[in-house]
Amino acid sequence: MRISELSRVSGVPVATIKFYLREGLVPEGVRTSPNQAQYDDEHVQRLRLVRALVGVGGLSLAATKNVLGHLDEPTGLTLDLLGAAHQAVAPELPVEVDLAPAVSLLRRWGWDACADAVDKDTGDRVDDALGGLAVALAALDDAGFVVEPERMDIYADAMMQVARAEIAGLPTETPGAAVRYVVLGTVLVEPVLLALRRLAQREASAARFPSPTSRL
Amino acid sequence: MRISELSRVSGVPVATIKFYLREGLVPEGVRTSPNQAQYDDEHVQRLRLVRALVGVGGLSLAATKNVLGHLDEPTGLTLDLLGAAHQAVAPELPVEVDLAPAVSLLRRWGWDACADAVDKDTGDRVDDALGGLAVALAALDDAGFVVEPERMDIYADAMMQVARAEIAGLPTETPGAAVRYVVLGTVLVEPVLLALRRLAQREASAARFPSPTSRL
Repeated sequence: MRISELSRVSGVPVATIKFYLREGLVPEGVRTSPNQAQYDDEHVQRLRLVRALVGVGGLSLAATKNVLGHLDEPTGLTLDLLGAAHQAVAPELPVEVDLAPAVSLLRRWGWDACADAVDKDTGDRVDDALGGLAVALAALDDAGFVVEPERMDIYADAMMQVARAEIAGLPTETPGAAVRYVVLGTVLVEPVLLALRRLAQREASAARFPSPTSRL
Repeated sequence: MRISELSRVSGVPVATIKFYLREGLVPEGVRTSPNQAQYDDEHVQRLRLVRALVGVGGLSLAATKNVLGHLDEPTGLTLDLLGAAHQAVAPELPVEVDLAPAVSLLRRWGWDACADAVDKDTGDRVDDALGGLAVALAALDDAGFVVEPERMDIYADAMMQVARAEIAGLPTETPGAAVRYVVLGTVLVEPVLLALRRLAQREASAARFPSPTSRL
């Protein structure tokens, strides 16, 4: 199909497709003349994937390239795949953040594989997810917003149920399938979980405050 | 204290404080001369709150103003507080999104308060969280990433546990306390949950792949 047809089928404007082509996010079509190229179903799928990552995933151009790079050249399960997936989508973290409160929570839950992801000599974090937790806890503290230990435990339990189901479902047949699962699962499931939390709050609120006039 | 001291205590650079003052995110100090003003502990707390919202919360300037507006003038529990909190921090959603897959999930879980948040005549969403779920599901679909119904149920269960604990802990003494709890809880707990999911994935992965050479 030509680029106009590709645009129609994928729902992505021609100008955007041209931008993605220039940036190498979508592979070139097969050139049929100096000004024309043919595209196929793989281009349609790739365009939809890029749109999902950039749109809902909210990834930057650089992060999208990074994610696509992992999908295109899966380097196998022996690589630190989770770390790479998390890094690809993690926001920039401040260099200086106190890891101690985060590590102490992880130890309380027995999440030792995570707590051990701190360099024993320097105390530096070796996992961005640990840094992410430390930064998030510092922000709660900054805002004077107290989350009681019992509630933090409920958060940890809920996220462990989520993670167990996700790791149990990991396809191990091919490195490509595993990489795709981890990388896309990290990026694209986050908005699902956040939307579900908000909807569940509304549902729980309706149960606690049955009268519409006193409802949250 | 003077602005230099305020900067030292809060850890926010003077230029940033001046920007926040100009934008009205932080109230003016008490002027002691044409070029000097005095600030107090409330300014320190407010600065930390703004930093938490803008930094980790990742809010835009407009969204931060919106959130602070809710905190400064809580309009009581009878208002659609959750809706306002969610709206304050929700990303812009495309106008056109198919709500049917999201509504059908909600019905399956018996989340009828959420499913009913669709205008019966027009079919339009009246809750941005519902739109958020619809967009997130569409992105999964676009990316060709299948989440089995059983896993989606686990996500819903986990988020309902989170939401129940949150709504149960809602302070109802004063509207101000309730608003603060809902608004800040929405913005600042999201990064905590996402970081916990990533750490839990690492923990679950270490349990499933005990050998470091085959670990994710």
